[in-house]
Order: sequence, then C-alpha cells, then structure tokens
Amino acid sequence: MATPTITAFDWVPDFAKGQVRDFRVRWALEEVGQPYEVRYLSQGEQKGPEHRARQPFGQVPTYEEDRLTLFESGAIVHHIASQWPGLFPDDAAGRALAIEWMFAALNTVEPPIGELAYVDIFEADKPWSKPRRPAVEERIASRLKDVAKRLGDQQWFNGDFSAGDLMMIAVLRIIETDPLLTAHPNLVAYVKRGTDRPAFRRAIDAQMAGFTGSPPPGFAEWEAKLKAGAGAN
Amino acid sequence: MATPTITAFDWVPDFAKGQVRDFRVRWALEEVGQPYEVRYLSQGEQKGPEHRARQPFGQVPTYEEDRLTLFESGAIVHHIASQWPGLFPDDAAGRALAIEWMFAALNTVEPPIGELAYVDIFEADKPWSKPRRPAVEERIASRLKDVAKRLGDQQWFNGDFSAGDLMMIAVLRIIETDPLLTAHPNLVAYVKRGTDRPAFRRAIDAQMAGFTGSPPPGFAEWEAKLKAGAGAN
Repeated sequence: MATPTITAFDWVPDFAKGQVRDFRVRWALEEVGQPYEVRYLSQGEQKGPEHRARQPFGQVPTYEEDRLTLFESGAIVHHIASQWPGLFPDDAAGRALAIEWMFAALNTVEPPIGELAYVDIFEADKPWSKPRRPAVEERIASRLKDVAKRLGDQQWFNGDFSAGDLMMIAVLRIIETDPLLTAHPNLVAYVKRGTDRPAFRRAIDAQMAGFTGSPPPGFAEWEAKLKAGAGAN
Repeated sequence: MATPTITAFDWVPDFAKGQVRDFRVRWALEEVGQPYEVRYLSQGEQKGPEHRARQPFGQVPTYEEDRLTLFESGAIVHHIASQWPGLFPDDAAGRALAIEWMFAALNTVEPPIGELAYVDIFEADKPWSKPRRPAVEERIASRLKDVAKRLGDQQWFNGDFSAGDLMMIAVLRIIETDPLLTAHPNLVAYVKRGTDRPAFRRAIDAQMAGFTGSPPPGFAEWEAKLKAGAGAN
C-alpha cells in the first residue's frame, strides 16, 4: 500500500491550533506507527471543488490510500484502527466496546462541548450567547459527571488504551483547563495520561509545524468584532 | 447466541415518539432480520443504578447479547451491521464508506439538528431561544446543502442501502417536514426511500406499540410552562 495522505489547513486561528480535526487522525496514525503524507490546503482551496470532491463539507481531515478516499475523523480513526494493530482489541467484543466509546465521545459528549465554542467564539458577539452560557455549561456538566463516574479509577475505559480513549480524550481536552473538566480529578488525570503519550506529542508537534500559511483577508476585523461584541454583552 | 435484548422507554412525550434512539437499533435489527427482546424502563428506572450500569448516561438504547452489553445507538448499529449481513458491504473499502456516513450523520449533521430541539422544545421558554433560532437554522441549512449536493441523484450514498444510509435517514427525518429539509427534493425523496422500507415500518410500529406507560408526575405542568414561555417570546 502507498503511504496514506491526509489533508490539513495551512493556517487556523489560535484557538483552533492543536484542535483541528486532522489532529485526531495524526494521533491515530502515530499510535499505530504508520507514516503519512499531508496535503496542506490554503484558505482558497478549502471550500473549492477539488477539496469538496474529497470532503462534501469542505472540512478537514480527509484520508486517501490507493483507491479509497475517506472523510470524517471518526471514520478515519476507525479505519486506521481496523487496519493496523494498536487501537482496537483483537476480539470482536472488545472492538465493539472501543467503538462504543468512539461514538459516545462524538455523539454524546462532543455536541454540548461544541456548543461552548459557539457561545464563546463563533457567536460571542450575539446577544443570546452570554445569557445562554449557563444552560450549555449544565449540559456539559451533566455529561462529564456521568463520564467521570463510569471511568472511576480505571486507566482507560476498557483495558488497554484504544481508539475509544483516543477519541474521548480528544474531545475532553477541548475544555482541558475549564472548571467544568477540572471539577473531575479522574478526568484530568485521564486526559493527562492521553496527552503524555509519545504518539500524542508527535501528532501535536506535526500539526503545529504545518501552520505556515496566512489568515484570510478580513480575519483581523472579524476577530476584533467578536471580541468587542463579547465584551459588550 | 441468545436473542439480543435492547432497552426502551415505556413512555415519552409525543414529540419523541418514533424518534427515541432505540428506534435506530430496532430498524437495524429489522433490516438484518434478527429478532430481539425489549426490556422496557419506566420513568423511575431510567436513571436508576441498575440501568446506569448498562448505560452511563441513563439513556436508551442498550443492547445485550451473551456477555456483551453495549450502549450508544451508533455503536450498536455498527455491531449489528458487523455481525449479520445486510447493512455493510462485504469489502473493507465499502465498509469504511458506510461507516464514514454513520459518523457524518452523528457528528456533522445531527449536532445542529439537535440544537433545534433545544430551541423549540427544551429551552422554548428561555429568552435566548427565539432570537437564536435563525443562527441554528443557518447551521443546519449549510450542512443540508452539502449533504444534498453529495447525494445528487443517487439512491443511496454508496451503492446499496447501508448502515450509513440508515443513520443519515434517521437523523434527517427528525426534521422531515421542516422547510429546511423540504428545500431539497432529493433529500425528501431519499428520506422517503428509507422510511418506505418494510424494515423501517416494522421498527416504527414496534416502537409505538411499546409506549404503554405513564408520564412522570409534573410532566403536564412542565409542558404547559414551555408552551406558555414559547408563546411569550
């Protein structure tokens, strides 16, 4: 098989550095020890027809190997874990449990955490964001309480580190320093176990090294407007 | 293998009938022709310790077979599709593409659609909901435009009907009659192709037949308060 190629952005705002979703795929590839190539997309290419043919939403990452092109970081991590040893247990039941935590991370835990980015960043200048924040916090707090209780004093969710842990840690670290997360010492320790892994560090370093591009025209004004709006609310 | 057992609620508000997530698992089981048992949970049991041992978030569905207990409808549908023929293509690349659409449905398309339920139902009485609605609509419209464009005039996303289509249709039909969806005739036809399937009909009938319980104390007051609040905004 040829070396797989992923796509990534050549520039993102500071808040997204280390978080853009190609990170999750880089981490998985580093965990299984599979080298990869990166096709960097400049601002003009991200929503263009060539990239839309790979990724219908004009997002990253994508993953190409031989004749297969995939999008959705969850699906790509699943594919990597299916293809190389290290992220899925060998038995069918263990694999089902790892996949359970992948879906739990992406469909149960991440959606409310994603709303916090709307409140604090994308819609920071909207009049509804500040009054709405406590309700979003409550949704996140409720999920984290349940995740913390189920994790208990386990190292990982089901025995060895798996693609389920990779995805849950990738989601939890979005709010790594937020009191919502730091209220749960076992989740803090869990995230730290994940982010201390050599594969995690290599993936972060690789993503950061790829930000060599420039912001789109008007970015500084957009950012200033959001900051002023957030201050006014 | 023993007949698998899923969990479902014995009562939900009208807006949730036909949508509660055990529906997705019932549909998958009907597609592969696998009989199943249902353990119905009354209001008091849903958040109790026995069910939390199966489902850390106190939700449905769960899935039990022999010694394996799973939660998260995405993971359960994946497990069903892995175990019986009918929902995943036979080849690894086809399977990866079906899984891609499962994750796209659950992590890219469903989160903004889920926000509409907060705006219109769970937070209908909050002052931020009405002003916020257009921004949520815009997020959904943007996703649906991309989904519609990628689907084009295909019957299903990758050849035969798959677990990816099952999940995408389960998500799109949440807003089946909303102008956001009906703006896209090819998505309307896609959802109809899904909901016309005999397995879909059997799954809906089975879910509806299971609602034999009673609302929790205080439900009528909660509903009246939401409606009054929504009217006042």
